Amino acid sequence: MGKGCKACRGLRHPGACKAYALVYKILPMMPPALTHDTLLSALRDGLGARHVLTEPDDLAPYLVESRKLFTGSALAVLRPGSTEEVAFAVRACTQAGIAVVPLGGNTGLTGAGIPQGGVVLSLERMNRLRALDPVDSTITVEAGMILSEVQDAAERAGLLFPLSYASRGSARIGGGIATNAGGIAVLAYGNARDLVLGLEVVLADGRVWNGLKALRKDNAGYDLKQLFIGSEGTLGIVTAAVLKLFPRPRSTSVAFVGLDSARAALDLFVDLRARMDRDLTAFEYLPPFALEIVLRHVPSTVRPLSGDHGAYALIEISSARPDADTRAELEAALGAALEAGIIADATIAASGAQNAALWSLREGVPEAQTREGASIKHDVSVPLSKLPEFLERAGAACLAAMPGLRPCGFGHFGDGNIHFNLTQPAALDRAAFLAEWGRFNRIVHDIVHELGGSIAAEHGVGLIKRDELAYYGDPVGLDLMRRVKAALDPADLMNPGKVLPGRDRTPPALA
Amino acid sequence: MGKGCKACRGLRHPGACKAYALVYKILPMMPPALTHDTLLSALRDGLGARHVLTEPDDLAPYLVESRKLFTGSALAVLRPGSTEEVAFAVRACTQAGIAVVPLGGNTGLTGAGIPQGGVVLSLERMNRLRALDPVDSTITVEAGMILSEVQDAAERAGLLFPLSYASRGSARIGGGIATNAGGIAVLAYGNARDLVLGLEVVLADGRVWNGLKALRKDNAGYDLKQLFIGSEGTLGIVTAAVLKLFPRPRSTSVAFVGLDSARAALDLFVDLRARMDRDLTAFEYLPPFALEIVLRHVPSTVRPLSGDHGAYALIEISSARPDADTRAELEAALGAALEAGIIADATIAASGAQNAALWSLREGVPEAQTREGASIKHDVSVPLSKLPEFLERAGAACLAAMPGLRPCGFGHFGDGNIHFNLTQPAALDRAAFLAEWGRFNRIVHDIVHELGGSIAAEHGVGLIKRDELAYYGDPVGLDLMRRVKAALDPADLMNPGKVLPGRDRTPPALA
Repeated sequence: MGKGCKACRGLRHPGACKAYALVYKILPMMPPALTHDTLLSALRDGLGARHVLTEPDDLAPYLVESRKLFTGSALAVLRPGSTEEVAFAVRACTQAGIAVVPLGGNTGLTGAGIPQGGVVLSLERMNRLRALDPVDSTITVEAGMILSEVQDAAERAGLLFPLSYASRGSARIGGGIATNAGGIAVLAYGNARDLVLGLEVVLADGRVWNGLKALRKDNAGYDLKQLFIGSEGTLGIVTAAVLKLFPRPRSTSVAFVGLDSARAALDLFVDLRARMDRDLTAFEYLPPFALEIVLRHVPSTVRPLSGDHGAYALIEISSARPDADTRAELEAALGAALEAGIIADATIAASGAQNAALWSLREGVPEAQTREGASIKHDVSVPLSKLPEFLERAGAACLAAMPGLRPCGFGHFGDGNIHFNLTQPAALDRAAFLAEWGRFNRIVHDIVHELGGSIAAEHGVGLIKRDELAYYGDPVGLDLMRRVKAALDPADLMNPGKVLPGRDRTPPALA
Repeated sequence: MGKGCKACRGLRHPGACKAYALVYKILPMMPPALTHDTLLSALRDGLGARHVLTEPDDLAPYLVESRKLFTGSALAVLRPGSTEEVAFAVRACTQAGIAVVPLGGNTGLTGAGIPQGGVVLSLERMNRLRALDPVDSTITVEAGMILSEVQDAAERAGLLFPLSYASRGSARIGGGIATNAGGIAVLAYGNARDLVLGLEVVLADGRVWNGLKALRKDNAGYDLKQLFIGSEGTLGIVTAAVLKLFPRPRSTSVAFVGLDSARAALDLFVDLRARMDRDLTAFEYLPPFALEIVLRHVPSTVRPLSGDHGAYALIEISSARPDADTRAELEAALGAALEAGIIADATIAASGAQNAALWSLREGVPEAQTREGASIKHDVSVPLSKLPEFLERAGAACLAAMPGLRPCGFGHFGDGNIHFNLTQPAALDRAAFLAEWGRFNRIVHDIVHELGGSIAAEHGVGLIKRDELAYYGDPVGLDLMRRVKAALDPADLMNPGKVLPGRDRTPPALA
């Protein structure tokens, strides 16, 4: 096995001898004669040959993410069918010094699931519902279960699993947990982290940690599940989870509101939060440009308000109380806001179909942006009180840097989370625009950083923000992360180079 | 400095030479001639002489916890007044190989704050409110702020900080965070962990990690604050926190309900949870024995229902919605439950004073137990669906083990958290009864463990459950905890011997 080895292409340590020399120091138990071929042969024996993909055509869909910003390379794609098989595969690979990149539905937006060598470990076959207990109000699922199927299973039991985002029809729950996904129901129910009661995790050495507890209170030692939630597969592989379920809303109302500015939107949010308490389940923000391109590009969308406004908000309130009349609550609250001059205009949906029509204006923004041209995207958060300042300053700074640019900061306003996307100037070349990504990162992230915000709010770090995290991250915090990483994955073989630079400091492989 | 050194008494490594020999290996930068006297002298220079207590009378109140189950020993008590002073003190102590035991209000129930040598680092002087932002709905507090003062500061801003428990008048918020405290508002608002947005922490090497973010979404790397919440000072010292605030309830109603059994209580809980959604803010459980001793021992308590019942529940619902009529909601729900035969009788408070009177029946249980005799206590949780089985089995097993014993399992039923306390048989000697603590641990915790529960639900592990955690803990999970501990505190000087056995395996020093 040397540089000429065919299987070596795409390995993290090209030239197996070098890799093995490294591994010998760390894992003296490794069989000395193990080669990639013998590893693949062992994996085929353990997982079944058809679950060890090595043909380029079979690998291709696993090597590129949805936005095609990153393409990767891998020795193989493994598709284990059980926790034991995941453990076997991880043990075999890590003992051989081969990196393991876990992958769910490949809907991530940061390149976290894209391999830079090693093997891809797909959780797609681990898609079983293990248990649902309506009294505990919990569901126990395997990591590969599709998010919408988790939602559907809860609904069949008359309950709600609130985690939800645009890719719910193909995203797998393990990926949502590994990235601490956010989405459209965070305001009332929290991020993925807040919905997890217990986890089962395969560790870097192939051991299984069984933390599948269904407890609302548990202080028996460190809360280990927190380590794995949001660590993007760099500390271990989530194979199953116990998740919280909630009473299903009986009444839901949605409004679309026109306002003068983001400052007015913040005033409205503070007012509604105080009035609605936990019934306020969404407060989304759109600038005029976002609404315009949705109406232009997304079929079946209809202008919700007659006039033009400086800003728009989509508001949802919902309740499971049998007596709740969310429409009346929303009417009263928006009537008072109109009276007080906080809002300029509003429409309240009169049916579930109208609720969905208003939501489509918000959910259509990413598609509309794609059709309008290339976008440079930032998924950031700031303290709520800084939202208007952030939108104003970041918009002005980006426009100053590139006249004709069309800033489009929209999203989960109530969570302080803005998708601050920049649509290219109409006249500019697409590739020339995208080449400016790094420059706009610095402009936008500098403002976020100054305002005490986060450069990675809900999508995570992966490859796309790894070097930004290293640039902005507190040195003490970064050192703590490296210590945790080294404690749980001393050989740096669990999704190496994601979140933190890998040991060999491979730069992110932008396509 | 040898065994005869006066200051050495109570040190974790009696005989400084031995300690220094150990430390030399770990911390080569330590000044070779440092003795306890020079350390104390340096601490006096840095903190001011009156904030370095060494007189036995001054130390005494810091060396024993509220239930007097543990007494400790310490070289000194340090009272730093700022984060910088905490960092200085930790750096000075850990470089000298001296253990540091952080202490808040000393209201813990596990011995976590009781030193077994080393120094006590009291956060009592770090009691400032740093900021309150009503738009962000956050409060930034220092670790030594009294819990009730945090609550009061929120109230003055028209907001709610929901964390609350019996010792709120003397407990300090840093201790609540370090132990992930629970209490009476967990059902709707979560444990302390769920209320923390950001932390400032002094690490074992004296560096300060500034994670004081006020963000609702932040996936920029590992969520480091989770490491410190609930780790009982074994990984670092929380010096400040950004906490979530909530709209203040405008309407609150409390009911006291008589039921046939714990099974009926579970039926009622499931019914109310589905009806009330997030308005259900407390569901507490009392067995008949608990109510009887409260009425016997706690002044001004009044029997709430005329008949005798097999079980009792205290229910609170609250809402910040201006139009909420929680009393009417509760009446409707309990009327339906009476109709359906789930409950036998109920009384609903008609005023704030009556709310408080009903709560006093629940909050009086610990005091009543103290007056009724010695108690062996267990703070455990099980999945909600297992609560009746747990109460039945644990009660029967304990009675079989000691006829005449009076089991008193009460508490946060809606969280699956029972304080399964055992009141001594009336005739037995107090000390003879308490000597059986270990035997009853095994009986109760075996059942908890079998039901998938936790032997440490809301009070934590400290010293009192350290060896129980080692006994019941999953070996893989315990290994992960040890790895995290070694990564953050390689010299084992941060509250050593708490949660996990210390490096020198000193057995817990039961008084």
